Amino acid sequence: MRVDGKPTRSIWLEDDGWSVGIVDQTLLPHRFATARLTCLDEAAYAIRAMRVRGAPLIGAAAAYGLCLALRQDASDESLERAAATLLATRPTAINLKWALDEMAAAVRNQARGARVEAAYRRAAEICDEDVAINRAIGRHGVALIEAVAARKAGAPVNLLTHCNAGWLATVDVGTATAPIYLAHDRGLRVHVFVDETRPRNQGASLTAWELGQHGVPHTVIPDNTGGHLMQHAMVDMAIVGTDRVAANGDVCNKIGTYLKALAAKDNDVPFYVALPSPTIDFAVVDGARIPIEERDAGEVTAITGRTADGRIETVRIVPDGTAVTNFGFDVTPARLVSGLITERGVIAPSRAALAAAFPERAKAAHA
Amino acid sequence: MRVDGKPTRSIWLEDDGWSVGIVDQTLLPHRFATARLTCLDEAAYAIRAMRVRGAPLIGAAAAYGLCLALRQDASDESLERAAATLLATRPTAINLKWALDEMAAAVRNQARGARVEAAYRRAAEICDEDVAINRAIGRHGVALIEAVAARKAGAPVNLLTHCNAGWLATVDVGTATAPIYLAHDRGLRVHVFVDETRPRNQGASLTAWELGQHGVPHTVIPDNTGGHLMQHAMVDMAIVGTDRVAANGDVCNKIGTYLKALAAKDNDVPFYVALPSPTIDFAVVDGARIPIEERDAGEVTAITGRTADGRIETVRIVPDGTAVTNFGFDVTPARLVSGLITERGVIAPSRAALAAAFPERAKAAHA
Repeated sequence: MRVDGKPTRSIWLEDDGWSVGIVDQTLLPHRFATARLTCLDEAAYAIRAMRVRGAPLIGAAAAYGLCLALRQDASDESLERAAATLLATRPTAINLKWALDEMAAAVRNQARGARVEAAYRRAAEICDEDVAINRAIGRHGVALIEAVAARKAGAPVNLLTHCNAGWLATVDVGTATAPIYLAHDRGLRVHVFVDETRPRNQGASLTAWELGQHGVPHTVIPDNTGGHLMQHAMVDMAIVGTDRVAANGDVCNKIGTYLKALAAKDNDVPFYVALPSPTIDFAVVDGARIPIEERDAGEVTAITGRTADGRIETVRIVPDGTAVTNFGFDVTPARLVSGLITERGVIAPSRAALAAAFPERAKAAHA
Repeated sequence: MRVDGKPTRSIWLEDDGWSVGIVDQTLLPHRFATARLTCLDEAAYAIRAMRVRGAPLIGAAAAYGLCLALRQDASDESLERAAATLLATRPTAINLKWALDEMAAAVRNQARGARVEAAYRRAAEICDEDVAINRAIGRHGVALIEAVAARKAGAPVNLLTHCNAGWLATVDVGTATAPIYLAHDRGLRVHVFVDETRPRNQGASLTAWELGQHGVPHTVIPDNTGGHLMQHAMVDMAIVGTDRVAANGDVCNKIGTYLKALAAKDNDVPFYVALPSPTIDFAVVDGARIPIEERDAGEVTAITGRTADGRIETVRIVPDGTAVTNFGFDVTPARLVSGLITERGVIAPSRAALAAAFPERAKAAHA
């Protein structure tokens, strides 16, 4: 997507042909800055510290992290060590494991001298595939928005999203945002209610920023607000992303997603989840078995922003010594999901539909 | 309740016998400071700016605001003007109107010379009645907690609350917190999950602070977290307050309450609402007709806290120019409420039960 008018991906190979460029997402929305990753540890840190985040982008970053590791040592031991290091950075998004498996398959049985080139080739493919998948998600999802628009006689279609499943969460285009950007580009009137998404505020700081850069009308709301909006027919459709979909269609996504799905169900608002197939984990039978990341208390007790005179400050917002719990994700049961928007179409959130749409992946999981 | 060990109410008559002391709640949790109200405008500002907040306390503050106005001018015109000014400060909490009606009844038909004394007398009664009501709420509500404790064999009873319906929201004791403080004082093991409650963070800044002052174990959570906790049996019971209960039992409370009620229903977690009878609005047939306050965008776009070196700073947390919506309240339908904890017992959230428990108020509304 465009940043100040210039087409930009969230991750790229630098001109030197080996180091990896990223947008440092911890500085948004106050500052757009890029960073350069030059070794495994920098890549692992970038994922852990959420300089890059979002399930698809975590996968792409891990792929390039493995390239950087192999560049220093292309042995089997190095490969295994690097994969273990990267896998340990974040537990919930399955795209991380998927990308590492893809990379291992690409270099396995190659002579050590050929591994680095093979790795960089596969990492680049993973990135390009992600973009192609997201464009396909956009084409399938936009039909849902167009159907609502047809009923609304020129009034804007009001969408609600949670966290950031935008281009910043992927290599480009985004998952939940793909249909929204396409609808906007086709001239449909869309307006997005953006959940702030405490504690890290990815909605207010990332989704609002990227929708603004692309010119899509939007309104930031506290996470508490979505239910009230749905009760008052102010939301036509919710679209969120996901970090892992279980084989039965249960959806794991940023904490708070479940609450919005409940409100959508209670008010007959369609609730869609957009995802690339690498986010499906056919090896996990239901959502209850997806590991939920617990993160640092500091994300809840303090918040970073910009003062009136332009300084970036971190302020504490709970009493000293207060205990805090910080679960990163929750699971929305399949029964609350209207449909899964994938690169192969909009499918029901069920074991049968998932296996039918992605038979090669369902089969591999049971091999 | 105690502040640094010293018994303290949220509002009081100063030693001069006429000016009104309050805890300035906009400074908590970083600083405990009191303020002195000396005229109608200061009282109205304190309510509007949420230096005092919480439905019962708003009522008490309005009562004293009327005293301050009458002290300067005890005419009928002054009374009407002052009541109109105070009524316009906040639209949702019905306790405000209730207290103003009570005050008007107390001074009406009195000679002008007797009005000030009558007003101060009724304002003091309103405060004392609020405390007595809350103690009764505590006695009725604690039985619910004791019943859970009996099943838990010594393990702590985990409660969840939203916003601040604590002693800071009332004159003393609190509504939702009344059963919790009483349970704690009786030696039951209780632990409270405190919803942060964006955008103004009354949970993290007020409820956490007052529970901490009283020694009640608690954990602050982002508003997004409650659903996940309930899915994992980490919450035994939710208790919240309310700003207005409609005649049919629909409950208006701080924005986001509805989402927690949905999650409670979905996971068979009892969801109770604690309220003094002045919070019941028998003149409003259902929750859809309760006016929902919309507040300033700045409450969402910026947040105030304490820097590591002790300065109080306000930081912006959304991109410049971003649109924001800030509804203060939402309505939880009666069907999601397990019971209303009132000073006359725990009653069903229904028209019949409310009218049966408070016949004198139900009748007056239809007179």
